[in-house]
Amino acid sequence: MSKKILVLAGDGIGPEIVAEAVKVLNALKAEGAIDVTLEEALVGGAAYDAFGDPLPEETLAAAKASDAVLLGAVGGPKWEPLHISKRPEKGLLGLRAGLGLFANLRPAVLYPQLAAASTLKPEIVSGLDIMIVRELTGDIYFGQPRGIETLPSGERRGLNTMVYTESEVERICRVAFDIAMKRGKKVCSVDKANVLECTEMWREVATKTAADYPEIELSHMYVDNAAMQLVRAPKQFDVMVTGNIFGDILSDCAAMLTGSIGMLPSASLNEHGQGMYEPIHGSAPDIAGRGVANPLATILSVAMMLRYSLGAPEAADRIDAAVSKVLDQGLRTADIMSEGMRQVGTAEMGDAVVAAL
Amino acid sequence: MSKKILVLAGDGIGPEIVAEAVKVLNALKAEGAIDVTLEEALVGGAAYDAFGDPLPEETLAAAKASDAVLLGAVGGPKWEPLHISKRPEKGLLGLRAGLGLFANLRPAVLYPQLAAASTLKPEIVSGLDIMIVRELTGDIYFGQPRGIETLPSGERRGLNTMVYTESEVERICRVAFDIAMKRGKKVCSVDKANVLECTEMWREVATKTAADYPEIELSHMYVDNAAMQLVRAPKQFDVMVTGNIFGDILSDCAAMLTGSIGMLPSASLNEHGQGMYEPIHGSAPDIAGRGVANPLATILSVAMMLRYSLGAPEAADRIDAAVSKVLDQGLRTADIMSEGMRQVGTAEMGDAVVAAL
Ligand SMILES: CC(C)[C@H](C(=O)O)[C@@H](O)C(=O)O
Ligand SMILES: CC(C)[C@H](C(=O)O)[C@@H](O)C(=O)O
Repeated sequence: MSKKILVLAGDGIGPEIVAEAVKVLNALKAEGAIDVTLEEALVGGAAYDAFGDPLPEETLAAAKASDAVLLGAVGGPKWEPLHISKRPEKGLLGLRAGLGLFANLRPAVLYPQLAAASTLKPEIVSGLDIMIVRELTGDIYFGQPRGIETLPSGERRGLNTMVYTESEVERICRVAFDIAMKRGKKVCSVDKANVLECTEMWREVATKTAADYPEIELSHMYVDNAAMQLVRAPKQFDVMVTGNIFGDILSDCAAMLTGSIGMLPSASLNEHGQGMYEPIHGSAPDIAGRGVANPLATILSVAMMLRYSLGAPEAADRIDAAVSKVLDQGLRTADIMSEGMRQVGTAEMGDAVVAAL
Repeated sequence: MSKKILVLAGDGIGPEIVAEAVKVLNALKAEGAIDVTLEEALVGGAAYDAFGDPLPEETLAAAKASDAVLLGAVGGPKWEPLHISKRPEKGLLGLRAGLGLFANLRPAVLYPQLAAASTLKPEIVSGLDIMIVRELTGDIYFGQPRGIETLPSGERRGLNTMVYTESEVERICRVAFDIAMKRGKKVCSVDKANVLECTEMWREVATKTAADYPEIELSHMYVDNAAMQLVRAPKQFDVMVTGNIFGDILSDCAAMLTGSIGMLPSASLNEHGQGMYEPIHGSAPDIAGRGVANPLATILSVAMMLRYSLGAPEAADRIDAAVSKVLDQGLRTADIMSEGMRQVGTAEMGDAVVAAL
């Protein structure tokens, strides 16, 4: 049966990079390697501009009815003056919550062909391959109460709530342990258990859940130390699991260790394997519309989609291999350009991946 | 009039490194460069072991009665099984709250003599000099409600509250702006204003407060991007100002960029200029008692103390110069050792600084 993919191009460079990922999907479809149906909808600033809402009801409904969502990127300075409830980011957060996408997988992988792009010394990052598993539907992102209140004195007070239940912690830890079982079997759980009770409980639940995974080597690290260790010796990590806000910060830090965030995909999954797939980079409004953006992170997000939501691991492997091949061929978009390589635009890069499939 | 310094050696390597810093203070005192009286008290695990309390009343009272506190470090695996309310960290947090030390200054400075110790490429970090101004008595560290509750279902739920009032944000921004006026006049305020209302208010207050500082160039950055930018191009920053938890994470990340956290001091100040001074590194229980720890961060913390709380900037400059001199002489403790240098122990390093004064 044909699988449904909802394509949400979003803002900034979103439409350009998603177009290349769609080329790859269509190429695989044309040769019969996958059976998919593509549909499109608006989200983020684009949806706000059209409907006054960053996540129109139809978009959420279409997302729920699909097997997987392919997202470009949302946001841009144009919408920053809007109230927080209308910003493009709310579209993203609404999709995460609406689909129950509690497990965010963010690989930080260094492509050997791009090792020079890292700001870190080669011996520190060569061969880097970390999987960050970030909880995505709880924590201070969604906790109540929240808001800005006016005190009797007339002064304002801003407030957000970090909150986790045991079952929320347990299910994300299981995702991390399951993934680690297929990798190096090492999981580092990151918290601030020495200060925050919420994460003290996190640590207890992680430890308890690990009892079901005798082969997993579980360690715990405070978030400040984790930020240090990512810079000091990132290769000590295999899988990291943490809450929503710590994961937001650490996964971006880890991604930047590779020096090429234009290469990094991500997956956000719910309990049924339904998922949203997007590059970890942003909407890059400064280069939008110029055909220079790197589509590879979005194309690699399609590979993750085929692997995690559409049950097509062979097609996923072919995409990964094709991306590696175009890098070997010396093709580079501006963000990863280096001496002796051939600089190409967004569409040319997409075409090259299709050709290399 | 003689200034009172309370010396809190703390746990792990605390006593060893503090002893060397005290040598430096006594040397300056002996020659009449400063007029200080030293007193000692217990805090952290050491205080728990003696009194069952990581912050005994006498210690807090002595701290309040002093002009400045010199702290080694607190914590260690020995006390990790304790309830969060009895842990060494609670002693530290209690001192911060009890003295109202809302402004935490954490320089991330790369010593040219130690440039090779960084895991980052030399061109990325050479000349690095960031001052991170972290709010220290608010945010999710102290916010109420907090704790672990049992839901009617029997499941537990952990909760902490991120909270700031406008005046808390304003006063820490003023500290950052005042410091920036004596430096590069650039301040980057870090928040998560696209998701958290608390930090949306932070951004508004920072912007409003900056109106009093027309020469300051204020920028805003989301915390995830800040973690990225610290790795990508740290020299873009002059002064960074942020809340307690984001500051905890980012300042450790920034410190590690230098590759030599054994060199970095910190100051925590209240509204009256009273302050607590400590190395940014931890209590390193693994090397405690072996006489190999690096005392330079603690000695440099004394320099900050003389500058910010004791009104003795010349003596502070002399300490800074003496530390630079011992590095030029090729002396290195184990943590910063490199080829061709002479490895020394904790006491020998302290003596060398005294000699170089
Ligand atoms: C855009 C923003 C709401 C989002 C987040 O904070 O989760 C982004 O930073 C991310 O990590 O996907
Ligand atoms: C020990 C701990 C409570 C403390 C903190 O989180 O503030 C430490 O990490 C620091 O940064 O001084």
